Amino acid sequence: MQIAVIGATGAVGNEIVKLLEEREFPVASLRCFASSRSLGKTISFRKKQIPLEVLTPIKCDFAFFAAGSSISKEWIPKMDALCIDSSSAFRQSAPLVIPEINAHALAHHRGVISSPNCAATILLLPLFPLHRLYKAKRIIVSTYQAASGGGFQLVRHLEEETGALLRGDHFPTTLPYPYAFNLFPHTSELDESGYVGEELKISQETKKILEDDSIAISATCVRVPVLRAHSLSANIEFHHPFELDAAIAAVKSMPGVTLFEDRSKNRFPTPFDATGRSEIFTGRFRIDRSQPNTLEFWAVGDQLLKGAALNAVQIAEYLTKGPQSFMSSYR
Amino acid sequence: MQIAVIGATGAVGNEIVKLLEEREFPVASLRCFASSRSLGKTISFRKKQIPLEVLTPIKCDFAFFAAGSSISKEWIPKMDALCIDSSSAFRQSAPLVIPEINAHALAHHRGVISSPNCAATILLLPLFPLHRLYKAKRIIVSTYQAASGGGFQLVRHLEEETGALLRGDHFPTTLPYPYAFNLFPHTSELDESGYVGEELKISQETKKILEDDSIAISATCVRVPVLRAHSLSANIEFHHPFELDAAIAAVKSMPGVTLFEDRSKNRFPTPFDATGRSEIFTGRFRIDRSQPNTLEFWAVGDQLLKGAALNAVQIAEYLTKGPQSFMSSYR
Repeated sequence: MQIAVIGATGAVGNEIVKLLEEREFPVASLRCFASSRSLGKTISFRKKQIPLEVLTPIKCDFAFFAAGSSISKEWIPKMDALCIDSSSAFRQSAPLVIPEINAHALAHHRGVISSPNCAATILLLPLFPLHRLYKAKRIIVSTYQAASGGGFQLVRHLEEETGALLRGDHFPTTLPYPYAFNLFPHTSELDESGYVGEELKISQETKKILEDDSIAISATCVRVPVLRAHSLSANIEFHHPFELDAAIAAVKSMPGVTLFEDRSKNRFPTPFDATGRSEIFTGRFRIDRSQPNTLEFWAVGDQLLKGAALNAVQIAEYLTKGPQSFMSSYR
Repeated sequence: MQIAVIGATGAVGNEIVKLLEEREFPVASLRCFASSRSLGKTISFRKKQIPLEVLTPIKCDFAFFAAGSSISKEWIPKMDALCIDSSSAFRQSAPLVIPEINAHALAHHRGVISSPNCAATILLLPLFPLHRLYKAKRIIVSTYQAASGGGFQLVRHLEEETGALLRGDHFPTTLPYPYAFNLFPHTSELDESGYVGEELKISQETKKILEDDSIAISATCVRVPVLRAHSLSANIEFHHPFELDAAIAAVKSMPGVTLFEDRSKNRFPTPFDATGRSEIFTGRFRIDRSQPNTLEFWAVGDQLLKGAALNAVQIAEYLTKGPQSFMSSYR
């Protein structure tokens, strides 16, 4: 396969290159693209140094786009390749796929397949087996999103500002408040509805991936001082009644999801547990008795892996190797 | 007034002593109690050094208890004083008071008045004016709770572990996971319902303070790597319809609550903004169109001040100076 990674120096693109190597994707040739600032630099792949190039329209089998919406919008139409896009640019019009959930949607692509918003993916993997059984009616979700969602730059910002604070040094911040030991409502664009873009993405993408526009959703997205795994609390009202044990059993049988809890030790998933891991970790399943047919749970996933790069690579694996591919190699 | 502070070396007790001085509470004598480890040490109050004592049954006007539930349970019955208790020991049986909301309940005390759970207080101050107008039906809340809720020890743990991580040093942690750049579901005791003690407190205390057992609540409590202000996202279904502007106006008119938002700059309250401040800061009010009569908002408050010490001192102020006292001196 001839592969291109666009945005190869970014947090997501970097993980895509690593995953193509680690997961032994059948790469015959790899080209890596970044901004002109990266010209002259290289990226390591299978012990070779791949030179960074500035993007031009090219022909290849798969082009992974991980350079943000505006680059995707401009360049995907010019590519002679099946583009797998981690940005939100084509999520409304193209198939939007989590292979474990709606791989059937891949069949309808017209040159571009979108990979979902990271928080939507972390919500949907544990929710899907429950939705299939009990039909989700209304979802309330609050997120605890890591710095990595803002790219390498925000991760470094958090580390450096925190170090400066602890040493008592001045830190030239670009935010209107500290990020060290602080958190803030998500800064994606505020809609006139009062929701921010990230919250609307979770809502729209959930409906599209579950193929059910009747699902009602309200999300609150928050950036927390964590490096690279997102967490969320979810309160789900279903149409149908359920038993807690059966719901937990359904989640346990879902590929890509690990029930991670030890109730005797009051131990549930944390971002640390999920960092560098392929699965979504979930726990704290409990019946919310404040209304019928309602469940609360907690889910954590590596934002850069299943939340972004891994899902994109799994889409390519599914298209290349078929339905069982994505279940075979959770690391 | 003769005053005693029990647990004066702890995070909350320490703030109570500072607030008695700053707010010019009419203190004729102050006695400070701590464990025997603190014997020989002193606490500064109005430029004097108050020696720390080991608790014995004493007579005074107000005894502020801030040393945890077991100390309150053991010692409050032995005191000849009006005890204002920051622990959960008597919250079921004694008046449970946020003066801005239910000061009328103070009249019924029998020697002890409880100050509520910090997260409940941060939820209830902005919620109360809305409940009064539209009657809360169901509340879903997710918290983002700071280290200070676990005392000075946990604050130091977070700072020291974070410093060690950034320097690459080993840190001898007492937790089963890192706290530096990590978060975890609240570690209060796990009930067989699957909720932890902190979540059940929010539920029980909300019903008691709003004097409405019909309110349905489900909470998710999470400890985040923030030093001393708690945040929460709340999704509230009301019995009655409302207009967003009227709801926001009601919150703005509530004593002790500050609407803190600049929508043109996408700027909403963060723990940093609330640290050291008396008010609860709130924002991100928006209609949740996923069902009728439903509102989302965000609230942040200093856990040690209005979440604990300040509320306790305000109870004493109310009893001493009358109804307007607590509105006069937000710093």
